[in-house]
Amino acid sequence: MTTPESGLPAGAPLAPVHYEDLVRRELAVDLGSAGDITSGAIVQRHVSATAMIVARRDGRVCGLACALFAFDVFGGVRYRIERDDGADVTAGTVLAVLDGPAMALLAAERTALNLLGHLSGVATATRDLVTAVGGVGHARITCTRKTTPGLRALEKYAVRIGGGSNHRSGLHDAMLIKDNHLVIAGSVPAAVAAARAAQGHLIRLEVEVDTLEQLEEALEARADAVLLDNMSLPDLERAVALARGRATTEVSGGITPDTIRDVASTGVDVISVGWITHSAPALDVGLDFETSA
Amino acid sequence: MTTPESGLPAGAPLAPVHYEDLVRRELAVDLGSAGDITSGAIVQRHVSATAMIVARRDGRVCGLACALFAFDVFGGVRYRIERDDGADVTAGTVLAVLDGPAMALLAAERTALNLLGHLSGVATATRDLVTAVGGVGHARITCTRKTTPGLRALEKYAVRIGGGSNHRSGLHDAMLIKDNHLVIAGSVPAAVAAARAAQGHLIRLEVEVDTLEQLEEALEARADAVLLDNMSLPDLERAVALARGRATTEVSGGITPDTIRDVASTGVDVISVGWITHSAPALDVGLDFETSA
Amino acid sequence: MTTPESGLPAGAPLAPVHYEDLVRRELAVDLGSAGDITSGAIVQRHVSATAMIVARRDGRVCGLACALFAFDVFGGVRYRIERDDGADVTAGTVLAVLDGPAMALLAAERTALNLLGHLSGVATATRDLVTAVGGVGHARITCTRKTTPGLRALEKYAVRIGGGSNHRSGLHDAMLIKDNHLVIAGSVPAAVAAARAAQGHLIRLEVEVDTLEQLEEALEARADAVLLDNMSLPDLERAVALARGRATTEVSGGITPDTIRDVASTGVDVISVGWITHSAPALDVGLDFETSA
Amino acid sequence: MTTPESGLPAGAPLAPVHYEDLVRRELAVDLGSAGDITSGAIVQRHVSATAMIVARRDGRVCGLACALFAFDVFGGVRYRIERDDGADVTAGTVLAVLDGPAMALLAAERTALNLLGHLSGVATATRDLVTAVGGVGHARITCTRKTTPGLRALEKYAVRIGGGSNHRSGLHDAMLIKDNHLVIAGSVPAAVAAARAAQGHLIRLEVEVDTLEQLEEALEARADAVLLDNMSLPDLERAVALARGRATTEVSGGITPDTIRDVASTGVDVISVGWITHSAPALDVGLDFETSA
Amino acid sequence: MTTPESGLPAGAPLAPVHYEDLVRRELAVDLGSAGDITSGAIVQRHVSATAMIVARRDGRVCGLACALFAFDVFGGVRYRIERDDGADVTAGTVLAVLDGPAMALLAAERTALNLLGHLSGVATATRDLVTAVGGVGHARITCTRKTTPGLRALEKYAVRIGGGSNHRSGLHDAMLIKDNHLVIAGSVPAAVAAARAAQGHLIRLEVEVDTLEQLEEALEARADAVLLDNMSLPDLERAVALARGRATTEVSGGITPDTIRDVASTGVDVISVGWITHSAPALDVGLDFETSA
Amino acid sequence: MTTPESGLPAGAPLAPVHYEDLVRRELAVDLGSAGDITSGAIVQRHVSATAMIVARRDGRVCGLACALFAFDVFGGVRYRIERDDGADVTAGTVLAVLDGPAMALLAAERTALNLLGHLSGVATATRDLVTAVGGVGHARITCTRKTTPGLRALEKYAVRIGGGSNHRSGLHDAMLIKDNHLVIAGSVPAAVAAARAAQGHLIRLEVEVDTLEQLEEALEARADAVLLDNMSLPDLERAVALARGRATTEVSGGITPDTIRDVASTGVDVISVGWITHSAPALDVGLDFETSA
Repeated sequence: MTTPESGLPAGAPLAPVHYEDLVRRELAVDLGSAGDITSGAIVQRHVSATAMIVARRDGRVCGLACALFAFDVFGGVRYRIERDDGADVTAGTVLAVLDGPAMALLAAERTALNLLGHLSGVATATRDLVTAVGGVGHARITCTRKTTPGLRALEKYAVRIGGGSNHRSGLHDAMLIKDNHLVIAGSVPAAVAAARAAQGHLIRLEVEVDTLEQLEEALEARADAVLLDNMSLPDLERAVALARGRATTEVSGGITPDTIRDVASTGVDVISVGWITHSAPALDVGLDFETSA
Repeated sequence: MTTPESGLPAGAPLAPVHYEDLVRRELAVDLGSAGDITSGAIVQRHVSATAMIVARRDGRVCGLACALFAFDVFGGVRYRIERDDGADVTAGTVLAVLDGPAMALLAAERTALNLLGHLSGVATATRDLVTAVGGVGHARITCTRKTTPGLRALEKYAVRIGGGSNHRSGLHDAMLIKDNHLVIAGSVPAAVAAARAAQGHLIRLEVEVDTLEQLEEALEARADAVLLDNMSLPDLERAVALARGRATTEVSGGITPDTIRDVASTGVDVISVGWITHSAPALDVGLDFETSA
Repeated sequence: MTTPESGLPAGAPLAPVHYEDLVRRELAVDLGSAGDITSGAIVQRHVSATAMIVARRDGRVCGLACALFAFDVFGGVRYRIERDDGADVTAGTVLAVLDGPAMALLAAERTALNLLGHLSGVATATRDLVTAVGGVGHARITCTRKTTPGLRALEKYAVRIGGGSNHRSGLHDAMLIKDNHLVIAGSVPAAVAAARAAQGHLIRLEVEVDTLEQLEEALEARADAVLLDNMSLPDLERAVALARGRATTEVSGGITPDTIRDVASTGVDVISVGWITHSAPALDVGLDFETSA
Repeated sequence: MTTPESGLPAGAPLAPVHYEDLVRRELAVDLGSAGDITSGAIVQRHVSATAMIVARRDGRVCGLACALFAFDVFGGVRYRIERDDGADVTAGTVLAVLDGPAMALLAAERTALNLLGHLSGVATATRDLVTAVGGVGHARITCTRKTTPGLRALEKYAVRIGGGSNHRSGLHDAMLIKDNHLVIAGSVPAAVAAARAAQGHLIRLEVEVDTLEQLEEALEARADAVLLDNMSLPDLERAVALARGRATTEVSGGITPDTIRDVASTGVDVISVGWITHSAPALDVGLDFETSA
Repeated sequence: MTTPESGLPAGAPLAPVHYEDLVRRELAVDLGSAGDITSGAIVQRHVSATAMIVARRDGRVCGLACALFAFDVFGGVRYRIERDDGADVTAGTVLAVLDGPAMALLAAERTALNLLGHLSGVATATRDLVTAVGGVGHARITCTRKTTPGLRALEKYAVRIGGGSNHRSGLHDAMLIKDNHLVIAGSVPAAVAAARAAQGHLIRLEVEVDTLEQLEEALEARADAVLLDNMSLPDLERAVALARGRATTEVSGGITPDTIRDVASTGVDVISVGWITHSAPALDVGLDFETSA
Repeated sequence: MTTPESGLPAGAPLAPVHYEDLVRRELAVDLGSAGDITSGAIVQRHVSATAMIVARRDGRVCGLACALFAFDVFGGVRYRIERDDGADVTAGTVLAVLDGPAMALLAAERTALNLLGHLSGVATATRDLVTAVGGVGHARITCTRKTTPGLRALEKYAVRIGGGSNHRSGLHDAMLIKDNHLVIAGSVPAAVAAARAAQGHLIRLEVEVDTLEQLEEALEARADAVLLDNMSLPDLERAVALARGRATTEVSGGITPDTIRDVASTGVDVISVGWITHSAPALDVGLDFETSA
């Protein structure tokens, strides 16, 4: 898979271990102990059908493999992918055509669509921010750890499909000294010194700073990156100038499609946005049976 | 627990089996194999701290028990709940005060806040729709099966905390004949007849209809409820009049805080809204350490 | 699949998510850490065999897909189904013919037969009650929540295959006010009023009553259904007459093949029987290797 | 714990790892996504209650710890055990008194009772066989691998509580050469020789035989035990005489309370009975709220 | 599969239920939430490759099916096994050739090799002990319960592949009275009497003894086997003579390739060695991509 | 917890989510379906005992919390820790004293000791390498991804307790371009360029090089770190000199306590050693009951 923008690989793909259990659990919840009682009453076991997964709004597709796995669980469903993860589609676009037992298509439908809609929503929100920047500056758009419970790996993937980049995955893969750490450590230099002593050679260390004074302390302590939290645009510009050549700069807080271009124009390296994972609206997708079937 | 509006029980509470596994999985994802490397470097094992869970925006609280369980997993954390599920709070309100090992507070923070923010977001969106109706008509606000993957029980609960009611939980607890079933069955009467034959005595049967003609067919076939999908306001009014005394009426599609009052004024019984579960923005909540600790 | 009686769909089928984990856990228990030590000592890896699943008693088949999945787990086993779920068979009938590695056939045998025997036992007990009624009255035979731990979805399915219908699946899909609720609520009217206020539009409300006085209270409070618990036949007749046109009537308690016809003749709508799930004897089924192999 | 008969330990107790997951899964199934909607509507959160677990029939108690764990999952329930596993009780006997949130008592009730009723049924059936033997001969009553799917460890324990002994737990802990192995191996001597070569020093080897000729072959091959399958009483007597001092003798097939005394009188060492685990009727147990609460 | 030594079956094979969950969990740990970020950046999705699993040291192969399953999880990988479990190989030997998506080969590589290296290490250590004995005496080499956490079934299998035999699998499949039991029971005769009373007919009873006096007590109490713990060679010889014809003899403690021949020459039946499972060094194995690919 | 060497925090502690499932699974494997049959026969339920966890060899303690959790699962066991993780102990040192039901102590013993012995073995091997370096140079000792299947988080923790540092946790938290990537990418510059384009701002990039020519390419491409694989000491010295100030240097391959001092003296930054996790011998630890109990 390549992103439409670059022709480069879109980073690590999802693996089946990232979604198979989730899909099975979700099917079990939807089916409960009694199963699909409506379809069980109406549809004979031997009836086959053809159905299409269709976008009902414009957006970027993400999560097709997860969605199709919901049908795989039942067995006997074949499919043809028309527009895969990373494709930009308009309302009415057919993403995939499925063919198999009508009972399976009906039973897996909602599980499949909920996953596809959620992940496409994250990818679309990310894409829209990338688009809003419009090439100004050189900043990457990244997500945060403010992800939906249970969906971190999937949402991190959706951000990459949306053209964004990933921040750390969790508490384990990068050091990020935040305000609550400073309460414990007492000062930026003390916190950074302690972190440096334990820092693995493949681990980066970032420090969240609220003021230019804290920024200077973090730079002097040789943090690899600094997180400029909720600063005004003029302060951001000063901060970026101060940090240039000394640390990677990241901006966070209050980023919207309306404000992101101005933030990017400060020359910051990274713009991190929590809401693309925790509050992106789902993309509307549906499953339409062929009426002549 | 009682809802602020009514003094009545808010329906079924969450049970530990609804969230314990999710919280443990989410902590495992956040901690990875290396654990909380930042706090592990900075915080001595014996250091205790006091911290507050604080709302950063106005909204309705939901999910406090799930969030607090994230701290319980580590052991040694005590807490006092200030504002429990169902409370309406403003930015700055303290929801709970925690006291325990600083390492545990820092390691559980994000897992706890992500759950609390997500569920409070759903409860707040639901509450805002209930408020927007403002007592016009008698319709209940319900959710749909368009929930976030992995979170159905929790989101259904959040809808109840928001003052809404639950639609069916899945494919297993009510019959809902939708357009794809009609493609298979051929007609509304044929579909309803087949469903009636298999309908358990504690199961209700609803039929989704797009037109007044289909509505009349569903009523004649004695569906318990009818789902009026994407109808215009004038058609809605006619449909409600037609169904009065014969079936429960439900409206779905395109409901927003701006349009819901008009819809309610048609006298419909149920207004179902997908986006309160799949697209409600998270409520911003944070964890603040006491600086004098 | 259609039931032999009606030619209609037998309701919702089982899905793989209903049994795959159970089968894998059961195989792991049977194999332990040391595996099938008898077969491992006697059977060379490359040896194939043909075997038949055979009924050793008369009964109705149920659970063949679950049983065959036990062989699937090992890989390499092919099978042909001779008599599928819903078939009435006599002692000696071949249900399926399997062909594959002898090691796999031997290792999966007991897991497969235990499932098949248990579910066929439930289906057979249900069928025998349906037969005992012999068309008197119009009552359905239903199961209860008194199911074997871990097997609810499978036993509910077996009841449907036996020609019965399902009661609620659990605490979540219908309201049933029982004697312990009345202890809390104080009276039938108080309990029903509270339930009505929280009742979802796709949820039915049933009330368990011990006396005709309680029955009248429940009917006046407009319960959807009433559960007539352990009443004498004359009282049952009065109760059914009283409730006609006002609520669905269900009888429970002390139902046996000898008494069920009389109960059905009262005109009751539903006869629920706990023992068809918690105490039905297993159907004897075996696996016979072809001796010429 | 000691069995009433002997004052000796009843063998290995259950451990929490034997039942905790099962209880949690079963609660999750019963609560579904919507929870206990009846109690949630009727019972205020703060209401406490006292309830008693009561036997409704005569039998032997088994599974109390599993049943009580269902209440533990909700938190806040205290209990006092009146008659523990191994006690023989009559209808009306109180087994335990519980005190705690009424919501928790109601939500855990069915899960607890289903486990307790099932295991007490197995223990009671076993006890009744032991009683039917009445001290004739010296045979032990054992279960088989024909257990209910998912419940092997629990049912093996219930057999011990009923005064029986355990056969092998699975394919891994003893060698048992059965007819299907003989089909592969060609003869008893060939099968035993292969088994002997792989037999661990803590593993016993039993051979199932249908005829006295096969028995003699098994004894000559020095099997540790022989399983005499479906033999007539006279043949049994001859077989026991033949095997005396050479191998442990086990009888299986067609054992009922009416026939077991005659079988035991042949002097056989072990009588194994499949139906005490796969087909024992559940013991009727109930939960009664104190009405003055 | 047959062991090179004997042409006989190597005992029970592994089943998929013994390793599939472990492999999936291990892949999930290695991939984390972000996946294989290096390969994701460098390798285009459509690129295929051919790779070989190669031994980098001499040893005995074990665990190939587990290792290959790691690739199966990703789909699309085909393989040809060159040297299967039980084969003795030298450095440079190709064990299997794989062909499939380069992304899958790279993502599964470490999980596969860690399993294969660990199990081959156990098999090799066992083989080397068997070789060191060199046919002196008749003792079997067995493992103990001192296995690596999470890997008991796999390591027991590797011991069999190495030419060893299995001791009991756990606390459940044989009785072994150890020193801590004697502290509780007070004496060897008291402990054995209690054990005999509860001993199932397919269960063997072994007693650990430290002195010849304890040995005599155990033999008089008719233990099936005796475990001679940390005895000197002369005492071992006396013990073996004393026990001959009365009980199986097992030696444990301080066994190395240098000492095992002398121990075997005492005529002991079983030599159990803890370190072949808990401390055997892994066999070095690697995955080499074909450079012309 | 602080390491003896430094007084600093030893990095991230283990969390319960890192070991609780493993311990429960391991107990379930050891207990099987029949439980602890030896103790069940010998030990009365009400008997309490006091026992000590004792080191039988010199080494560094690691994993005490995991080991003690095995006893916690049974309930009723109290303990006092004498020497916690990170302590250096000699043979005979008491690590913890336990008091509780004898049945629980006996049933959890092996699970607890296997975990404690394995992790203490890893910590001891790491400590011994740190000691062998003896302060020469400034290199850290790190583990690799060659960990025991199922135990990565625990072994990474044990390495930290041993005074070592962690390499990356998996494929997800750092980029490491290895020889197989170079086969695909064609050259070091091409591989590094592709990786750089996808590299997150908190991710480091390391390149494995076999020759000084490859090293120069990697340095020119501005890799953050270089892994010098199996180089001779003279080449190592040249490589370290070449890389100084340009990239972190890591050495891997063939490191033993005898060679590590010379390697460290080259001035390399990191020495990674696979065998401290995959092949470290377990530390011998035991559980001794107090005989006067």
